[in-house]
Amino acid sequence: MRRHRHQLPPQVTSDDDDDDDSEDSDDDPTMKCVSCKEDYTRCDAGTCRECYEEASETEEELKREIDELKSKVSFLRFWAPLNQLSNRFAPPCFTDVVLMASGDGSREAVPVPAHKAVLASRSPVFRAMLENEMVESLSGTIKISDVSYDALRAFVNYMYTAEACLDEQMACDLLVLAEKYQVKHLKTYCEKYMISKLNWENSLVNFAFSHQHNAKSLLDASQSLIMDNMDKLSKSEEYKELVEKDPRLVVQIYEAYLSKQVNTASLKDCSTKVQ
Amino acid sequence: MRRHRHQLPPQVTSDDDDDDDSEDSDDDPTMKCVSCKEDYTRCDAGTCRECYEEASETEEELKREIDELKSKVSFLRFWAPLNQLSNRFAPPCFTDVVLMASGDGSREAVPVPAHKAVLASRSPVFRAMLENEMVESLSGTIKISDVSYDALRAFVNYMYTAEACLDEQMACDLLVLAEKYQVKHLKTYCEKYMISKLNWENSLVNFAFSHQHNAKSLLDASQSLIMDNMDKLSKSEEYKELVEKDPRLVVQIYEAYLSKQVNTASLKDCSTKVQ
Repeated sequence: MRRHRHQLPPQVTSDDDDDDDSEDSDDDPTMKCVSCKEDYTRCDAGTCRECYEEASETEEELKREIDELKSKVSFLRFWAPLNQLSNRFAPPCFTDVVLMASGDGSREAVPVPAHKAVLASRSPVFRAMLENEMVESLSGTIKISDVSYDALRAFVNYMYTAEACLDEQMACDLLVLAEKYQVKHLKTYCEKYMISKLNWENSLVNFAFSHQHNAKSLLDASQSLIMDNMDKLSKSEEYKELVEKDPRLVVQIYEAYLSKQVNTASLKDCSTKVQ
Repeated sequence: MRRHRHQLPPQVTSDDDDDDDSEDSDDDPTMKCVSCKEDYTRCDAGTCRECYEEASETEEELKREIDELKSKVSFLRFWAPLNQLSNRFAPPCFTDVVLMASGDGSREAVPVPAHKAVLASRSPVFRAMLENEMVESLSGTIKISDVSYDALRAFVNYMYTAEACLDEQMACDLLVLAEKYQVKHLKTYCEKYMISKLNWENSLVNFAFSHQHNAKSLLDASQSLIMDNMDKLSKSEEYKELVEKDPRLVVQIYEAYLSKQVNTASLKDCSTKVQ
């Protein structure tokens, strides 16, 4: 909640101090706010009482809807079979497939158990793989390349719970998996997190990353941040690396910047003519 | 949205008609509502502008939260294997158990396919049944007694989608199943529906039903409605039937009524003493 900026009008603080909520002082151009209980003048007027009451009812209704939706989410959420793995006395989870991280050289591959039905319901790629009796379906093992065990575990867990504990590395890893297996909900979730962590230092890396993995919102946000700092662009290390590695992407930034400049100029031109 | 009841003050409609939003007429004790754009007087005052803006921001935040939760619900929802049954060319759903309605004499029992993992995750009763290698788990068939095929199908569907298309009969049938298999979310859902359909005519039947199936909210709501109509109670057919069938329940109504009367009387007594 913000602190209120408006001040009490002089006549209330001086003349009317002991009786500032009296209904009969009709020459006093202040009214009392039913929410913050402070007096306000005409230029600070908000709503009438009926609109206030309607808005309060709406807020209550929205809160009730949120509670219902939260309870629905918690009902639809699964106990992921992963969390049962650590306890060898845990009951069986009726899993019928395992996923294996094949790019994690640091340790022996540990299978991540899952249900074909869950994978197929969350990802059209898994669905096609499992329904069409490809080798993965027949063997009951899906190998996932270039991924760590932790990321794979978080990926599978997300498909049961719609939740993940993100840091910047995990958000990248999960976005790559979400794009590859077309789990849109997870992709949006990672993009939102990465946008919230955007700053000038990581904007170019994020721009290149989002281009590579088709993450439109992150691409737009990082490009916009880069264009606000064009004076610093060519001095950064990441810029020099990107020119070496993928000069077309750099060209794309310059093109977008030029196009924005042209638009701004023509808008200014229009407004000058109108004046 | 309700229609506004308050009227424009006389001085605005008569003297100030062409200039009712002028900022400088300080002797005019009206202000303009930023929401409905109508003038209001001091006794209809609602909030100041800052509180109005804060409330609007809160509303926007709540709406965003609702959108996110809805998208989570739709992600976590399953395609129920039932809906694939009607199409024999549909791909397999990896189901590993079937449920059979054993009380539906009207037609041959049709199996309702499902996943052990889903049933076990939504219902502790199914979980115990399936995990402990009871006959149901070994045979892959769960017989559900005293239920129609349609109710069983709706029951299983709810465990995949958290949705059901209710009428009064279906709400009763599903509440019974929800209580038997401890699917709390469905039980609450049915109770809410039945409370919304409560009236004097069905209150006694609902009271007896909710008592039998341990539906506390419905019990309280129907008992409260009955107590508001005690003068009509003993004349109703349902009352006579209940006295025959379960007189203790009728005693419970009278006891609650008496206890309410005693409470009301002692409250009145207190307020008289205070005066």
